Amino acid sequence: MHDCVFCRIIAGQQPADVIAQTERLIVFLSLENHPLVVPKAHLENIYGLDDALAAGLMRATVRVARALKAGLGCDGVAVTQRNEPAAGQDVFHLHIHVIPRWHGGQPGWRMQVERDSTARRECRDRIAAALEPLDA
Amino acid sequence: MHDCVFCRIIAGQQPADVIAQTERLIVFLSLENHPLVVPKAHLENIYGLDDALAAGLMRATVRVARALKAGLGCDGVAVTQRNEPAAGQDVFHLHIHVIPRWHGGQPGWRMQVERDSTARRECRDRIAAALEPLDA
Repeated sequence: MHDCVFCRIIAGQQPADVIAQTERLIVFLSLENHPLVVPKAHLENIYGLDDALAAGLMRATVRVARALKAGLGCDGVAVTQRNEPAAGQDVFHLHIHVIPRWHGGQPGWRMQVERDSTARRECRDRIAAALEPLDA
Repeated sequence: MHDCVFCRIIAGQQPADVIAQTERLIVFLSLENHPLVVPKAHLENIYGLDDALAAGLMRATVRVARALKAGLGCDGVAVTQRNEPAAGQDVFHLHIHVIPRWHGGQPGWRMQVERDSTARRECRDRIAAALEPLDA
């Protein structure tokens, strides 16, 4: 059995600030306080992603980007997805970062906050409240 | 009429190193010598992306990532997509960067090369030869 922190979160064996989930994917806050869009099936990287799941992940990513705008009032959104250590991947379960940005690098809601802080929960709740239903 | 460099490329009014295209999207080399996956319709950013086009773009991105591995032999692939200036967007026509990476930051095929260079054409041809057909 592989030891994967994201699989443990998906199985409910490790706490996480979950924003939304469906049968096939989950959205939760990274330790850097931005949403990650993650397939529930353990898939290491993008190379093996099938068409249906690729489509579902991207539709969810679009909804999360809109929710960051509406819920946090950020000035921009960066989407990044890294495959293999040479590209900076550090958790080997496919994930898409959806990162709010502000003019002048202002941190806004993206400050590093402690895991159980009120600010982090408010960040999660604002995104969740603004998120359209996920369909994948 | 808006003035958009990607719309000019799509219309065939400006040269580009095109890797593949379908009715709804096009893949060509950026000036930094990595593929961009771009919808043909002028859409500024991810917020207005509809589900069908989101799905098609991601399916194409997966295929391009595989083609970078197979065609260039890179050690990893980074996918990035930026919305609004606060997130580093500089061309205001939605695009997804698919960037080959090598261990130790070796440039491999990702060197800056001149627009009409043989090396750049070879890079394009290697990716194109390894790319599975696009379906969107």
